[in-house]
Amino acid sequence: MISQTIVFKKRILIADVASIAGPKEAQGPLGKYFDKTLDDDLLGQKSYEIFESKIHRCVIGYLLNKTKTRCDELNFCIGGDLNNELYATSFAMRELDIPFIGAFAACASYGLSIIIASLFIESGHSQKIICSTSSHFSTAERQFRFPLELSSQRPPSSQWTVTGAAALMLNTLKGKIRVESVTIGKVVDLGIKDSTNMGAAMVPAALCTLSAHLSALNRNPSYYDLIITGDLGVAGSELLRICAKKQQLNLNIPLYSDCGCIIFDSDKDSGQGGSGAACSALVFNAYVFKKLLDKTYKRVLFIPTGSLLSKTSCLQRQSIPAIAHAIAFERIQRGGE
Amino acid sequence: MISQTIVFKKRILIADVASIAGPKEAQGPLGKYFDKTLDDDLLGQKSYEIFESKIHRCVIGYLLNKTKTRCDELNFCIGGDLNNELYATSFAMRELDIPFIGAFAACASYGLSIIIASLFIESGHSQKIICSTSSHFSTAERQFRFPLELSSQRPPSSQWTVTGAAALMLNTLKGKIRVESVTIGKVVDLGIKDSTNMGAAMVPAALCTLSAHLSALNRNPSYYDLIITGDLGVAGSELLRICAKKQQLNLNIPLYSDCGCIIFDSDKDSGQGGSGAACSALVFNAYVFKKLLDKTYKRVLFIPTGSLLSKTSCLQRQSIPAIAHAIAFERIQRGGE
Repeated sequence: MISQTIVFKKRILIADVASIAGPKEAQGPLGKYFDKTLDDDLLGQKSYEIFESKIHRCVIGYLLNKTKTRCDELNFCIGGDLNNELYATSFAMRELDIPFIGAFAACASYGLSIIIASLFIESGHSQKIICSTSSHFSTAERQFRFPLELSSQRPPSSQWTVTGAAALMLNTLKGKIRVESVTIGKVVDLGIKDSTNMGAAMVPAALCTLSAHLSALNRNPSYYDLIITGDLGVAGSELLRICAKKQQLNLNIPLYSDCGCIIFDSDKDSGQGGSGAACSALVFNAYVFKKLLDKTYKRVLFIPTGSLLSKTSCLQRQSIPAIAHAIAFERIQRGGE
Repeated sequence: MISQTIVFKKRILIADVASIAGPKEAQGPLGKYFDKTLDDDLLGQKSYEIFESKIHRCVIGYLLNKTKTRCDELNFCIGGDLNNELYATSFAMRELDIPFIGAFAACASYGLSIIIASLFIESGHSQKIICSTSSHFSTAERQFRFPLELSSQRPPSSQWTVTGAAALMLNTLKGKIRVESVTIGKVVDLGIKDSTNMGAAMVPAALCTLSAHLSALNRNPSYYDLIITGDLGVAGSELLRICAKKQQLNLNIPLYSDCGCIIFDSDKDSGQGGSGAACSALVFNAYVFKKLLDKTYKRVLFIPTGSLLSKTSCLQRQSIPAIAHAIAFERIQRGGE
């Protein structure tokens, strides 16, 4: 049987990362780690979607500056977001003179972009690729749940879509953290229909990808210093821990964490925690990447999760298919710089 | 400067293709070329979206049968469609036990999927990948233009979204047609805001990709036996011909054609011709691929085009960013079978 897990032969390195976080995210526990934080989530733009595309464009520009890279030195940008037809990403890309590949895995789009970019570099045909994503509380809520103006009460199972944008640059020459292996997920749908309970919808996909990854590489969870899922939230990540235990996989704290659980302080607003494409991307860029660099972690398994529901599928009372992709990052022994 | 064009070193071959076309497409000039045609565009399903996901699932199943391939022999499925959050593709994939990568380039999603799949195979980590797409007149119209129930009059510049699904399998061992090279497009937006004039919005992107491709490989249009764009339609393809001429690129008939122009008989309903993700995919699978096999053509440059607009961006009166990707197919000298 063919494996869904790929171990890379080339050194695929993260040259650098960039992150822009919204006001609520800035006040959360990771506030100090973001490159830039915003006081406002509209900044005078005419719509939240346009604002989201602006910060998506900005985070790529910021990364280009940070890495002193010109657009014509990049092979590709690969990215996506939660908006219909990748509104934020497409509109950001029209301002950049860089070939573009649209990737979609809902809240796991950043992870999927990193996977596609890694395989492009492994093919020998790319040297420098930027992966990017964004999400916005107000662009997401009205798509998947209720228009904000309705002021619908949020059930305790709900999560809070993160406002922000994140980008990273992969290359073959510069960097201390490499993409060691990836596992590409399958679409899993066990019948959850509640669009305010994303954690429950995504746990089966996360478990499926995690166990495929570990089994393909004959590893235990403890092979990693940190296993971090995308945005299962508090109840979702507890559910994953319970389900994993039944497969003899111990996801104890602090080995296991979830981006959705650590981006916000626990409060009644954010419910089970953060979600959205920028949730796992911001946590990875701002926190996990830095902790890999400062040697807190050597090996991290990053498993962004995505719910493939749409406004239309919700209104048509369909259940929620979900997907999770896994990426193993590793600090290399000697700096590649 | 880094090139956006990639020439493959490996033999990346089309093992086979499959196509399912809707009733209007079946009655068009290519009717006899489709594998399966439908008399009805709902077939008792509760919604057009569910119907679209069913035919998307069916076309993959049909291709698996045709090529006698089990799901576990495939590395990946790569695909996308025009629905919010890739509704049709995601819901098709939940019924298949195959790792899935979501690709989005609007009506060029099939082409983008073939590009990603080719690079995955070139990397040495994949041997068999299915690329798929679908679109449906009724799922698209209500997103990008008006709900059908409004019975809005269609302006003469409009195109008719194709109903259908298409899939192809790439592999390294079997087949007579190879993916020789690809050019990944940039997002181009010259300010067209009319969502009923897709041709005008996409011509700049098509020309940009075409001229980048030819210039990177130092080729003339006449290097190919056929250059075929995705869905510029009658006026759009004429506009491309005029703009290309200004760059000393002769896109004369019969060298140049457009999938949107040949899928329907000219009638007032279909306006400028076909559009939608299934338009270029069905024409490629049903017609171009067969004409490569029967030696009518040896080399074909396929340039699917996509308008990256959304219902939201239209309502917000934004202009329409567009993208085009190019794929050069070639009949190999000796059959690889």
